[in-house]
Amino acid sequence: MRIEISGVDGLPEVKLGDDIASLIASHIQLESGDVVVVAQKIVSKAEGQVRELAAIEPSAYALELALRLEAKTDPRIVEVILSESVRVVRSERVLITQTKHGFVSANAGVDHSNVPGEDMVTVLPADPDASADALRSRLRELTGLDVGVIVSDTFGRPWRLGIVNVALGVAGVQALLDLRGQRDDDGKELRASVVAVGDELAAAAGLVMGKTRRIPAVVIRGLKQEGPHGRGRDIVRPSAEDLFK
Amino acid sequence: MRIEISGVDGLPEVKLGDDIASLIASHIQLESGDVVVVAQKIVSKAEGQVRELAAIEPSAYALELALRLEAKTDPRIVEVILSESVRVVRSERVLITQTKHGFVSANAGVDHSNVPGEDMVTVLPADPDASADALRSRLRELTGLDVGVIVSDTFGRPWRLGIVNVALGVAGVQALLDLRGQRDDDGKELRASVVAVGDELAAAAGLVMGKTRRIPAVVIRGLKQEGPHGRGRDIVRPSAEDLFK
Repeated sequence: MRIEISGVDGLPEVKLGDDIASLIASHIQLESGDVVVVAQKIVSKAEGQVRELAAIEPSAYALELALRLEAKTDPRIVEVILSESVRVVRSERVLITQTKHGFVSANAGVDHSNVPGEDMVTVLPADPDASADALRSRLRELTGLDVGVIVSDTFGRPWRLGIVNVALGVAGVQALLDLRGQRDDDGKELRASVVAVGDELAAAAGLVMGKTRRIPAVVIRGLKQEGPHGRGRDIVRPSAEDLFK
Repeated sequence: MRIEISGVDGLPEVKLGDDIASLIASHIQLESGDVVVVAQKIVSKAEGQVRELAAIEPSAYALELALRLEAKTDPRIVEVILSESVRVVRSERVLITQTKHGFVSANAGVDHSNVPGEDMVTVLPADPDASADALRSRLRELTGLDVGVIVSDTFGRPWRLGIVNVALGVAGVQALLDLRGQRDDDGKELRASVVAVGDELAAAAGLVMGKTRRIPAVVIRGLKQEGPHGRGRDIVRPSAEDLFK
């Protein structure tokens, strides 16, 4: 088994209303079965998921939180993070929240980098699975091909340093591969073996995307799909199972 | 930029004392700059990091914990998990501990699958970075090539379902890529951008390894290394920074 990961080179800066699927299809030759991984940042820009800081009035709570954080953070950005969140998980040193979608991450995915102008931030797509669906449908319309789509972002982890790319939205490809009940190579039943294929695909794409390379879209070829298509929301652990609130 | 991930096909079952580097070099053509990702399981088997359950006497604490876990777990396996751990992080439903190496994971990496016989489990390598070093040196000796090595295992995540492959031991390749201070595509300074390249490499390899495919070694070709070599231990978040004890 062999998988190839190719960056989509030469994409222009994405702006509000841009047809990302068309940009991708005109910059790389797709094949049926490919998985296209797209950085949340360009999806958010195309969808207008951008906030102008000049229009934000930080609340007293946002002002207080901003003072507690290790990295100097604009209280208006803290306000945007709070407005994207349903719960503050930790606010010592770093601000970790649960977003409206259920994602637990630093800064609710609100990002200041790779956004034109000093005064703009992106927020996550309102519904990353729907964004992935729309990209997949549009790619099929343009190319006639059946490709999977993942909308990804980089998340930190509580016990490991560094960020890794994960799958927020998934369409037309597996999200979780449930191997429970299957046998291992020695014939023993596998336990606790649900593999987050969506996140492994996003992480693999992350190797090519980088942060400074202007490659916000990546094509993964050669994945053998072994189960039904899933959604990004399938990978979110339900709150009732959260042992680290 | 294009990365290829190839499984090393046809490896035999690994036993105590086996020369894994030689097995890999005789089953796939390596090139300088490749990164070889090896599943912890075969490293542990070769190094004799295996425990015979018949020789384990569970403590009263292990017996008590075994009753609390959601999945029926042999108290002798709980005893092995405790002996590999320095701290129990959670023991409701699942047993999450911090290992001697500092890894926080379910069951301390103790694993019953893909081990011959009903009565044996593997534990993690005593020093995964040293295991990676030894494999890298031996591969250089056998092939004359400079390759990176990652010893990987699958870990769960607190807020996301499913397991993903991560880097426990790293040699001759980046572990963390520190982009702080660099500029993004719009010229703004990147913040909070340390990328866990070692974990993204392991996750990418996980796509090919699978759990039931008998592919415990994978070669990644085409990675552009952008920083100094790192170690698996670099990716472990220091306890002092752990907000989720």
